[in-house]
Amino acid sequence: MKVNLMHGAGGAVFSELLGETLTRYTNNNAGGIGLEALDDGAVIPLGDTNLVFTTDSHVVKPLFFPGGDIGRIAVSGTVNDLAMMGARPIALSCAMIIEEGFDIPTLERIVASMDAALGECGAAIVTGDTKVLEKGAIDGIAINTAGVGVTEKPVRDCGLQPGDVIIVSGTIGDHGMAIMTHREGFDLGEQIASDVAPLWPLVKAALAAGDIHAMKDPTRGGFSNAINEMAEKSGVQVRITEEDLPIRRSVRSASELLGINPLDVANEGKVVMGVAPEDAQAVLAAIRSHPQGRDAAIIGVVKEGKSVILETPIGGERFIEPPIGDPVPRVC
Amino acid sequence: MKVNLMHGAGGAVFSELLGETLTRYTNNNAGGIGLEALDDGAVIPLGDTNLVFTTDSHVVKPLFFPGGDIGRIAVSGTVNDLAMMGARPIALSCAMIIEEGFDIPTLERIVASMDAALGECGAAIVTGDTKVLEKGAIDGIAINTAGVGVTEKPVRDCGLQPGDVIIVSGTIGDHGMAIMTHREGFDLGEQIASDVAPLWPLVKAALAAGDIHAMKDPTRGGFSNAINEMAEKSGVQVRITEEDLPIRRSVRSASELLGINPLDVANEGKVVMGVAPEDAQAVLAAIRSHPQGRDAAIIGVVKEGKSVILETPIGGERFIEPPIGDPVPRVC
Ligand SMILES: Nc1ncnc2c1ncn2[C@@H]1O[C@H](COP(=O)(O)OP(=O)(O)OP(=O)(O)O)[C@@H](O)[C@H]1O
Ligand SMILES: Nc1ncnc2c1ncn2[C@@H]1O[C@H](COP(=O)(O)OP(=O)(O)OP(=O)(O)O)[C@@H](O)[C@H]1O
Ligand SMILES: [Mg+2]
Ligand SMILES: [Mg+2]
Ligand SMILES: [Mg+2]
Ligand SMILES: [Mg+2]
Ligand SMILES: [Mg+2]
Ligand SMILES: [Mg+2]
Repeated sequence: MKVNLMHGAGGAVFSELLGETLTRYTNNNAGGIGLEALDDGAVIPLGDTNLVFTTDSHVVKPLFFPGGDIGRIAVSGTVNDLAMMGARPIALSCAMIIEEGFDIPTLERIVASMDAALGECGAAIVTGDTKVLEKGAIDGIAINTAGVGVTEKPVRDCGLQPGDVIIVSGTIGDHGMAIMTHREGFDLGEQIASDVAPLWPLVKAALAAGDIHAMKDPTRGGFSNAINEMAEKSGVQVRITEEDLPIRRSVRSASELLGINPLDVANEGKVVMGVAPEDAQAVLAAIRSHPQGRDAAIIGVVKEGKSVILETPIGGERFIEPPIGDPVPRVC
Repeated sequence: MKVNLMHGAGGAVFSELLGETLTRYTNNNAGGIGLEALDDGAVIPLGDTNLVFTTDSHVVKPLFFPGGDIGRIAVSGTVNDLAMMGARPIALSCAMIIEEGFDIPTLERIVASMDAALGECGAAIVTGDTKVLEKGAIDGIAINTAGVGVTEKPVRDCGLQPGDVIIVSGTIGDHGMAIMTHREGFDLGEQIASDVAPLWPLVKAALAAGDIHAMKDPTRGGFSNAINEMAEKSGVQVRITEEDLPIRRSVRSASELLGINPLDVANEGKVVMGVAPEDAQAVLAAIRSHPQGRDAAIIGVVKEGKSVILETPIGGERFIEPPIGDPVPRVC
């Protein structure tokens, strides 16, 4: 049995590899929420607070794209997984694997972009590692960041409760569609830009505004994958109202042209959350008051049961299912 | 200007890239010892303890070699950088970048090896990430681990004081020479085995036995690089007695055949430390009582001044200098 590209796409095939091989550690928990939870990060009780710990590698191609670059994703991806656990990001590591012959001024631009993203969320890169591989052994550069943060009260991806309101912090599908249209050289009039951004300031405001029961960042596998994981892990049904889903017109057009569902592609600056109904308006207002949250919307509700169901404007219903794999590799 | 293989070798050329490009963050410190120190890990005061945070990626070739494999290095490398800061390892992240077509049973062996190494030092893998790249975009697999640990009293690499005694925990050059002779297919009668191992249990015993002023693991760039960094950062001179350096006979033979100085190649299960003279015997005894420390030795002393000087058996002196780059890429 061999690894294939679907295994890295964050969908159902990936879950198989994850469950059967990659998470088979007997040493998988350091006292709090460990690997067994497969949440956005791990939680380790430490003194009178909780340490949150997470990691992501980035191999996006091309390195620079409309709205961002590999450096901005490398910082945002890890900061966002910390934020999804309710944690304030404190420090990141940065490990680069670089191909011989890589351009040093390009490296400088990447470092500057990482630094700018750190500045947006109050985190710092405090440790790192660099490996250089012979030409041909790695395609350009891969950047891993791990991150540590703290939280008084961890938020899980499995905390949805019947009655909760589902909020998304903005338009869906921007990052994946930005990469794909850019790669294909599509001219859609308006160039779609990635949403890549560190979400901690927005999430911090949301946490202060009300009781958030569950959060997840809809990265690989997109909104479809994130909401299904949340529903399944929480043991609930989620009902999404199609007409309330915020999707840019340009993203809709591109997705029709490419035959790709915008709900299935990666976002790099969005959060999906389940909120106590009495707090939903306050949380929504807090998110909307943040520049990255202007298009935030209430898009559904949580019921008893299972599955994620999309209610269409003409009264129809269909399942939102996790994609098998991502349509295109190396979007992040 | 382009990145070249020397840039990844951990020697003088690497230091240039590090200082001029890779560490140019304004956001580089989270309150304690940050990136500016370029120590084995960063330290972040947290409540009434100190969090230590570090990372290393591993790209060793071949994946399995005498004495170890990429999984064992991936755990040991990070655990050892935590241990060098005086920290008990708590949790590791594991981020894998895998080439399409990679063999899943091989992946299972690697995971099992990581798990075994975790068991040797009481750490756990609690979070991870997986990216799969198209065939040809990465040579097999790269594994990054980051690690968090805690310490009451951080140990630095810059803490050497005149009068200190230099101790090394065992034979020098084993890992690098094991990889090189294995790659070259040399038959030296006895196959040299890598020393790769998580050092925390040994370091813990040493810390309990006496006052350790400085520690560093002599990985890329070998003993030569580590001792020079320690001396330079501490603003002292180190004098090493050549005949006291523990080097296996097989490593000596191989190094003569290959024309490579065993002091310049990577170790993956050794620590170099500076110890208060009155505690030297107690610390040495504690290290020797550990299976990985049986060949530990006192190898030198710290003086006022600068440079690292090797005293030869016939009364000569020469400098031990940091290698420009490692003799061979992808040893770790
Ligand atoms: N190689 C691995 N070893 C251990 N755990 C892993 C590994 N790969 C993924 N995981 C774990 O599996 C879960 C899912 O990982 P995934 O990377 O999909 O999450 P994510 O970071 O939230 O998503 P994305 O990477 O798309 O941003 C997480 O809990 C993660 O810690
Ligand atoms: N890409 C990078 N970004 C930020 N800091 C880095 C980067 N690469 C290395 N560093 C920092 O530079 C210093 C030296 O790194 P290096 O990897 O040589 O240390 P090490 O892990 O102790 O050695 P080895 O990797 O050989 O085990 C460390 O303080 C490390 O945190
Ligand atoms: Mg996530
Ligand atoms: Mg992530
Ligand atoms: Mg390193
Ligand atoms: Mg080190
Ligand atoms: Mg190291
Ligand atoms: Mg991930």
